[in-house]
Amino acid sequence: MTADVVAQLVAELGDRVDVTDAARAAVRADKSGHAATGMPLAVVHARDVADVQTTLRIASATGTPVVPRGAGTGLAGGANTGLGEIALSLRAMDRILSVSSDDLVAVVEPGILNADLNAALAPHGLWWAPDPASRDISTVGGNIATGAGGLLCAKYGVVRDAVLGVDLVLADGRLLRLGHRTVKGVTGLDLTSLVIGSEGILGVVVGATLKLRRLVPGATRTLAATFADVRDAAAAASAVTAAGVQPAIMELMDAACLAAAHRLLELPAPTPGAAQLTVQTDGPAATVEAETIAAVLTAAGGNVRVAADDAEAEQLWTVRRSMHPAMETLGTTLIEDVSVPRSALPAMFDEIARIEAAYGLPIPTVCHAGDGNLHPNFIFDGPDVPEVVWEAAEDLFRSALRLGGTLTGEHGVGVLKRRWLADELGDDQWRLQREIARVFDPAGILNPGKVFAP
Amino acid sequence: MTADVVAQLVAELGDRVDVTDAARAAVRADKSGHAATGMPLAVVHARDVADVQTTLRIASATGTPVVPRGAGTGLAGGANTGLGEIALSLRAMDRILSVSSDDLVAVVEPGILNADLNAALAPHGLWWAPDPASRDISTVGGNIATGAGGLLCAKYGVVRDAVLGVDLVLADGRLLRLGHRTVKGVTGLDLTSLVIGSEGILGVVVGATLKLRRLVPGATRTLAATFADVRDAAAAASAVTAAGVQPAIMELMDAACLAAAHRLLELPAPTPGAAQLTVQTDGPAATVEAETIAAVLTAAGGNVRVAADDAEAEQLWTVRRSMHPAMETLGTTLIEDVSVPRSALPAMFDEIARIEAAYGLPIPTVCHAGDGNLHPNFIFDGPDVPEVVWEAAEDLFRSALRLGGTLTGEHGVGVLKRRWLADELGDDQWRLQREIARVFDPAGILNPGKVFAP
Ligand SMILES: Cc1cc2nc3c(=O)[nH]c(=O)nc-3n(C[C@H](O)[C@H](O)[C@H](O)COP(=O)(O)OP(=O)(O)OC[C@H]3O[C@@H](n4cnc5c(N)ncnc54)[C@H](O)[C@@H]3O)c2cc1C
Ligand SMILES: Cc1cc2nc3c(=O)[nH]c(=O)nc-3n(C[C@H](O)[C@H](O)[C@H](O)COP(=O)(O)OP(=O)(O)OC[C@H]3O[C@@H](n4cnc5c(N)ncnc54)[C@H](O)[C@@H]3O)c2cc1C
Repeated sequence: MTADVVAQLVAELGDRVDVTDAARAAVRADKSGHAATGMPLAVVHARDVADVQTTLRIASATGTPVVPRGAGTGLAGGANTGLGEIALSLRAMDRILSVSSDDLVAVVEPGILNADLNAALAPHGLWWAPDPASRDISTVGGNIATGAGGLLCAKYGVVRDAVLGVDLVLADGRLLRLGHRTVKGVTGLDLTSLVIGSEGILGVVVGATLKLRRLVPGATRTLAATFADVRDAAAAASAVTAAGVQPAIMELMDAACLAAAHRLLELPAPTPGAAQLTVQTDGPAATVEAETIAAVLTAAGGNVRVAADDAEAEQLWTVRRSMHPAMETLGTTLIEDVSVPRSALPAMFDEIARIEAAYGLPIPTVCHAGDGNLHPNFIFDGPDVPEVVWEAAEDLFRSALRLGGTLTGEHGVGVLKRRWLADELGDDQWRLQREIARVFDPAGILNPGKVFAP
Repeated sequence: MTADVVAQLVAELGDRVDVTDAARAAVRADKSGHAATGMPLAVVHARDVADVQTTLRIASATGTPVVPRGAGTGLAGGANTGLGEIALSLRAMDRILSVSSDDLVAVVEPGILNADLNAALAPHGLWWAPDPASRDISTVGGNIATGAGGLLCAKYGVVRDAVLGVDLVLADGRLLRLGHRTVKGVTGLDLTSLVIGSEGILGVVVGATLKLRRLVPGATRTLAATFADVRDAAAAASAVTAAGVQPAIMELMDAACLAAAHRLLELPAPTPGAAQLTVQTDGPAATVEAETIAAVLTAAGGNVRVAADDAEAEQLWTVRRSMHPAMETLGTTLIEDVSVPRSALPAMFDEIARIEAAYGLPIPTVCHAGDGNLHPNFIFDGPDVPEVVWEAAEDLFRSALRLGGTLTGEHGVGVLKRRWLADELGDDQWRLQREIARVFDPAGILNPGKVFAP
């Protein structure tokens, strides 16, 4: 039967089917550090919509699970492909089909990298706003499937705000065109929004109509402020939001993160215990806003320094951008992703300190402070997440929920958080969501075991 | 059986159940001009969530259809309640439960009027951006259920962009809390977005967590430009968007609309054939942007006049706001609501001219030119829409779809557009959408016959 599936795929798709050990091993994992059990059947590299449809028709006919895959940079195990499954890679479908400056709309294939799209849009004076820190290495289709956020999203929105329509291939191979090319449209149920963040369980995104913005004119301004401790930094970030200024970016690094990044970059060690806020303003009012924010942060006890020039600004952002590699110097990391109402940030940092002490674990934390999204990093030795880390993570999730927050601000549920999903949704909503997924995929062959625990 | 339902309602809800002829007759219609056939059983005025749950439990047990109702200002017949149906009014559930300036979030009951909410938010320096022209008379719950748009939405977004979560009572009476209180959150499927614009067929919105904005500081600027004909005005509007300036409001009135409004307001008659664009800019750059737009419109052949003061600006907006009463002076109106990509506006006006000629009907048209949403008004005599008007409307819908547009930009499908829904969605998507609705409401008692033709 298994041999039969691969034979059918090869018969219809030829060299787009890769059954080498290397290819099959590579799709077992994403960037979460977690890998699926066992070896997948094959990796299909779709070149067009028909390839996707063919793959799904064969999969449906044979009852074979299919895992859609962009660039595999996910942090929730959503694209991990295991025993008996087909990995369906969209990465080679990477064309821009049209760009309309007048309508601020682009139509693209799903496999294009976020950064490549933006490089192509820049000469038109346009951009697609979602900017995950992984923008150089993740696909637009993956960004849509995860509902990705990014650094700029408190000011310019998340993926949900930047997609007008998607083309979706269902589990049985049928193609649906969802959504609109118009800015407004309320015809029937908003299935485009439902697909955003659905992590490959409703269908395969084979095309997208994106809502663009014009590039923001003028230079940006950057400033950094250090605080005696992370709670003060978090309170200062809330004060910025409360003051009514809207930074383009506002990132918070706690003391452990800041120290690790400085060590990696061979910069002088920061004051022990000090946490840092790094802020960017943009647009016509960039300078005025930077000054206002500097004043708010100073009043909140920060030691503020406005970057004098682009070089100094660049250095400040390099510290923030080196966070991922800096964490890797400390050990194996499980990157968490809780989100709380902005005013609850100080309380959430108290919870993190409590959990560090209770479980004897270091939890260096970076935070998109402009929107209340925290990435606590659990650090441990060896390849597997120790049970105590999961216990601490569970404590973290419950703390976030208690504070009015959510399990995942931008990375998604995948396999890593599915066991807590019903805690946030409640059993009734959990069941309703699963039934909705079944309408799209009655046999349950699309990314089974992801989002919903089996 | 029917007597039994009403008896059960009265037994459990007492004076919240209104069975007077006047009340039952009033809920047969919304503001579309279309009324349901026959008399409803009763009108329930819910005062709290439990009242809504009780009503739905009785309705489910007895298989009685329920039509949720806000203020009844809808233009698609969505709240129309007919023979054997219960109207469930949310209007009395009008409390603001909390406002958090720090988090830019408000939690409200569904029955509050949009304008009342904004009046209460203003002292906090906050507002909820969706601003349908009916903001003084429509409810927040109705705005959510229709996915309402408004004049400011090209710059500040539609309802979909301004709701973080909704509390939903299902057909069987269970209460679900959907969405988040946080700005970001991707836990499971985005059911909040699915409920926005669902026109009462998935459940009853009994609460909402709204995403607020800070009031835009500074004075606004208003300008008006007249053009020899409507096509030129539409092309000029596209030129504004293409020039990269973002007006807060940009409204287009064709010659027939402009003349009717001037007549109603007893202003001097405009130049015959002339169409008008009325534009507002806001924020710190309001004056600069008004000047840029004035230059673009002049270059596009417009006769531009920047309002010297607030009084003159107010007069220009009074003309636009009197459109609805002005149309009523011409006869009975069917207000249409197609939307096209902004660059297709001139082509859409060509289509409207063709349809006027082909069917011998006047179709005065106003247009939210900043986002490509047109409201062609079909004018006729007598209370019922003549068949020729439906034929012309159908031609209009097909023209919009051909130009990459949609049947309804903001008013919804209701009963008036359900027969064309599958034309836009395609049969596969239409069926899928209906199956999704069945997951929420297996027995089909919630607003049956709306959105999906029976
Ligand atoms: C260093 C680093 C920084 C990161 N920073 C951020 C950040 O700032 N914000 C953020 O949100 N995320 C971030 N991420 C996580 C990750 O990059 C995002 O989740 C990204 O959107 C995944 O895109 P991808 O193409 O790699 O998708 P994959 O990892 O391949 O897939 C992710 C999920 O989407 C599904 N999927 C992918 N493509 C499709 C498709 N075409 N149709 C249907 N389903 C599909 C998969 O099945 C899977 O469930 C970061 C990751 C790394 C490694
Ligand atoms: C003069 C005028 C101008 C208008 N301008 C605009 C405009 O600029 N933009 C725009 O988008 N619309 C506009 N409209 C249309 C209308 O005001 C909107 O559709 C509005 O959102 C309806 O709100 P309502 O409270 O009156 O809802 P209703 O008319 O009572 O109901 C509308 C639909 O929503 C459902 N519904 C209502 N409340 C709930 C609830 N709590 N839970 C579940 N379902 C519910 C009903 O079943 C129905 O299907 C205008 C109407 C008029 C008369």
